[in-house]
Amino acid sequence: VIVDKVLSLLHKRQDLLNKRILITAAGTREPIDPVRYVGNRSSGKMGYALAETAAKRGAEVILVSGPSNLPIPQGVTIKKVETAAQMHAAVLSEFDTVDVVIKAAAVADYRPELIAEQKIKKTGDTLTINLVKNPDILRELGQQKKRQLLVGFAAETEDLITHAREKLTRKNLDMIVANDVTLPGAGFNIDTNIVKIIHKNGTIEELPQLRKQQIAEIILDKICIMLTKSI
Amino acid sequence: VIVDKVLSLLHKRQDLLNKRILITAAGTREPIDPVRYVGNRSSGKMGYALAETAAKRGAEVILVSGPSNLPIPQGVTIKKVETAAQMHAAVLSEFDTVDVVIKAAAVADYRPELIAEQKIKKTGDTLTINLVKNPDILRELGQQKKRQLLVGFAAETEDLITHAREKLTRKNLDMIVANDVTLPGAGFNIDTNIVKIIHKNGTIEELPQLRKQQIAEIILDKICIMLTKSI
Repeated sequence: VIVDKVLSLLHKRQDLLNKRILITAAGTREPIDPVRYVGNRSSGKMGYALAETAAKRGAEVILVSGPSNLPIPQGVTIKKVETAAQMHAAVLSEFDTVDVVIKAAAVADYRPELIAEQKIKKTGDTLTINLVKNPDILRELGQQKKRQLLVGFAAETEDLITHAREKLTRKNLDMIVANDVTLPGAGFNIDTNIVKIIHKNGTIEELPQLRKQQIAEIILDKICIMLTKSI
Repeated sequence: VIVDKVLSLLHKRQDLLNKRILITAAGTREPIDPVRYVGNRSSGKMGYALAETAAKRGAEVILVSGPSNLPIPQGVTIKKVETAAQMHAAVLSEFDTVDVVIKAAAVADYRPELIAEQKIKKTGDTLTINLVKNPDILRELGQQKKRQLLVGFAAETEDLITHAREKLTRKNLDMIVANDVTLPGAGFNIDTNIVKIIHKNGTIEELPQLRKQQIAEIILDKICIMLTKSI
């Protein structure tokens, strides 16, 4: 009760009270052998900012995170995973219990077909790695969803709006946050981002360069409005 | 002067004073496209512990580090790199000026032959990545070395001593620190390690499970002895 009081003083809005939100963050690692892996760039900063802000605003937050050294936000339930398969299992096991899913993680689309049990010695001049497709977690959630709101992210390097809109439709999302990771002030391992928010109805909002914490607040504002409408 | 005084009180031995030590740490990332990469597991903790300890003991330390969120130790000159090629350039440019090189980084032996300029779309069910060999930094240093002491690391998953001895000879090292990364209490992203130290003359010292900070002290003790002998 005291903690709640302090929180509500620090952060006046408790507009996510009684909402259960699953947030994914950071990148996955797909092992090639015990020391090498295929990774996806993501510091986890956007997902951790969302988790922290949602918790402050009263939500019950489950954060499913790939490897990251970021501090775990207070009041958040953390589930650490490494591979896309582990993230898939963690997300699916919670899906029925949550009101909102925000998928900010950079999940590997492909994984090595074979994982070498021992470190591959560098005998050859070349090495070929065959990758096979990972399950598409977001798409599965889009097919299974009932009352849940689904929010995705699209990190693109070209044709940002086209790719993001297409992803929103194909995966049955309610909202997608798109960013061009090649822009200065946007993208990986920095504290700011430049995003466009695309809604299911086609509306596009372009935000200026903001701190990831500020972007988290804005995304959660949109989610609050959608939750109110869907009641 | 005051800083030196405080340091010498905190850490009595200033036995690396006037020595210039280059330390590499963390893993490299070899880009596949703007979001995907091939990575090498290494938290950087061993290398950062060595850098911190060497600086406390009076050395002038240059830390060449792959991506890591670890705090930069006080009094250490940091050079951040991402790929093996960048690490190669950073290390070679300093080599003539240093007395000791400790290569604790996990450097990628292979890199993707082609780097896609745009994010590869997941259209295919499979994806093949062709890797080509990276320059062997440690071997080049072994060939070029004059007065410098060269200390390497070997992270292995089988035949630890055989692989480590072979690496020491082939790369003309003065000492190698070998660890079996499959042992509990050893290896990646934890604060302890279990290592064996192999000297050029064939001596093997087996250390118990120790904190990486303690291992750093022991490695630097050995280096001090070797530096004294070589004067």
